[in-house]
Amino acid sequence: MAERIGKDTVRLTHPAVVLGSAAVGTAKEAQGSLGQEFAFTFGDAKAGAATWEQAESVLHKEAIRYALEEARLQPRQIDLLLAGDLLNQCMATTFGVRQLHMPLAGVYGACSTMALTLALASVLTDSGAVRTAVASTSSHFCAAEKQFRMPLEYGGQRPPAAQWTATAAGAAVIGAQGAGPRIEAVHFGRIEDCGVTDSANMGAAMAPAACETIAAFLRDTDTEPRQYDMILTGDLGVVGTRLLLELLKKQHGLSIDGVHNDCGLMLYDMQKQDVHAGGSGCGCSAAVVCGYILHRLRENRLRRVLFVGTGALLSAVSPLQGESVPGIAHAVYLTSGEENR
Amino acid sequence: MAERIGKDTVRLTHPAVVLGSAAVGTAKEAQGSLGQEFAFTFGDAKAGAATWEQAESVLHKEAIRYALEEARLQPRQIDLLLAGDLLNQCMATTFGVRQLHMPLAGVYGACSTMALTLALASVLTDSGAVRTAVASTSSHFCAAEKQFRMPLEYGGQRPPAAQWTATAAGAAVIGAQGAGPRIEAVHFGRIEDCGVTDSANMGAAMAPAACETIAAFLRDTDTEPRQYDMILTGDLGVVGTRLLLELLKKQHGLSIDGVHNDCGLMLYDMQKQDVHAGGSGCGCSAAVVCGYILHRLRENRLRRVLFVGTGALLSAVSPLQGESVPGIAHAVYLTSGEENR
Repeated sequence: MAERIGKDTVRLTHPAVVLGSAAVGTAKEAQGSLGQEFAFTFGDAKAGAATWEQAESVLHKEAIRYALEEARLQPRQIDLLLAGDLLNQCMATTFGVRQLHMPLAGVYGACSTMALTLALASVLTDSGAVRTAVASTSSHFCAAEKQFRMPLEYGGQRPPAAQWTATAAGAAVIGAQGAGPRIEAVHFGRIEDCGVTDSANMGAAMAPAACETIAAFLRDTDTEPRQYDMILTGDLGVVGTRLLLELLKKQHGLSIDGVHNDCGLMLYDMQKQDVHAGGSGCGCSAAVVCGYILHRLRENRLRRVLFVGTGALLSAVSPLQGESVPGIAHAVYLTSGEENR
Repeated sequence: MAERIGKDTVRLTHPAVVLGSAAVGTAKEAQGSLGQEFAFTFGDAKAGAATWEQAESVLHKEAIRYALEEARLQPRQIDLLLAGDLLNQCMATTFGVRQLHMPLAGVYGACSTMALTLALASVLTDSGAVRTAVASTSSHFCAAEKQFRMPLEYGGQRPPAAQWTATAAGAAVIGAQGAGPRIEAVHFGRIEDCGVTDSANMGAAMAPAACETIAAFLRDTDTEPRQYDMILTGDLGVVGTRLLLELLKKQHGLSIDGVHNDCGLMLYDMQKQDVHAGGSGCGCSAAVVCGYILHRLRENRLRRVLFVGTGALLSAVSPLQGESVPGIAHAVYLTSGEENR
């Protein structure tokens, strides 16, 4: 059973265990700051497939395959896969996971999808509805640019606030029992829309949602930022991070300086790689969390991480119809599970 | 707590209660066979909005508003909204529910979305993670044709196997306690892909998934078709229904003749309205279930309904890249809750 604490947070009575996890990327991600944390990286963005969309499916499937391998489980032992992605109708997911033939609940949370699938998977596992679940997501730079902005062949100029969609996928296997990092609490966020209409500045569109989710989680759990080893947003990038820190101070009197990091600032080498304002896309926070973060939690080098996945809920059509870009942020509280060892 | 029965089915220890539900449509749906079951129907497909996509958002929001009204609850009393739709990046949902400011978990299941959101909402309510949830979805004929097939202005000829996307929305409010119809068990389906490549024949693409989910649910619960007042698929239409009945007999030796109905055959007047092979779209089964079915369960005129929502997991891009159309089907077992009255 789960219990509600405060207004909007869910504490798991039997924390879900991360039995295995994996990140998969391509050459660009391998050259990034967390290159060593990937289970596998393909040599180029096609990953042996005929199209970019199909390449994303390959990444998605491989991330699940490596995560299952770490958990020593077969696809047929998984009761539910919670997965989604940025492509129209979550196509990378569908064609990536089709052959694995696991029960599938499709999820859409834009770049917050990793947090959303982890949150749902852990609550469902805790409830007894499923014994083991997989949470996964993916994104692909070329497929995302083609779908949301310009075909790459146009050679369009990207503004400095633009972020670089990670060509990557991440997956985590969640169980009710066993050793490993734990998910102890989750928080489903609300849409926050401050009227940002620049669809090349996702960080600004998502920062208000991250701010409200972090403040609400701390309030509901009666905790302070310094009680966490890391409060990790994904993926605000340079612009969104600055806004988040400012908003938290102004709106809630909260400082998370020193404890905050952002998946969009961690995945690539911000000095050497040209990713403008940082990484983004479902695959960015998926790769950072399912690679680096869960590795560190497993090794007990991180103990308490509040992961706040952020998503910008726009389509290619909505800005053309005059809509602003609504943001959303879901939180997952991860621990090393040391108390239970 | 939920418990797993058989291989893939989840039985809720404390059945979730449907506290309120509503269907919203337009003039075409009002003229259909279930016209009297709608909480509200707009005079035309624009529903007072500037675009078709925005009109779908209006329908989606209104369905939630009417369902909340029946449940006598305010948006701030809802712990989680589970919602999604067919538009790219679930745009009808985002802009429809934005102002309601409820915690949101986005879901993607194509036309199976109503079943998927109901299934997730009931398990989460049962677990204690949320006290009250809303499950909702929508679709819009003009927006769907524009996105998946041809702009209406082209006047393209639709083949006989094509179905008519309902311009409708449905919402249900799910609680842990109270009087009303119950959700007693749920079943998350797997992707089934028999290689159908005709994207104008969704019924054929979805029938194999419906077949497997129905057979698995009956096997897991050790029940026979005649123990149900209705086994309700949504939305196979004329072609898919014929295939389903055939497949169930050939693959599993099961006959559901007499107990089977299909949302795609129920929503419109198949004699007088030109909807080709029947209704479809997320809003079709949403309107049939959140209107007619839940009304009948509430009045005890139906007692046991196995609702099997079916979805075709394609995008506008995937068939152009040579992909077939994978199907999926999720099941929700609804009762009138009479034993608990």
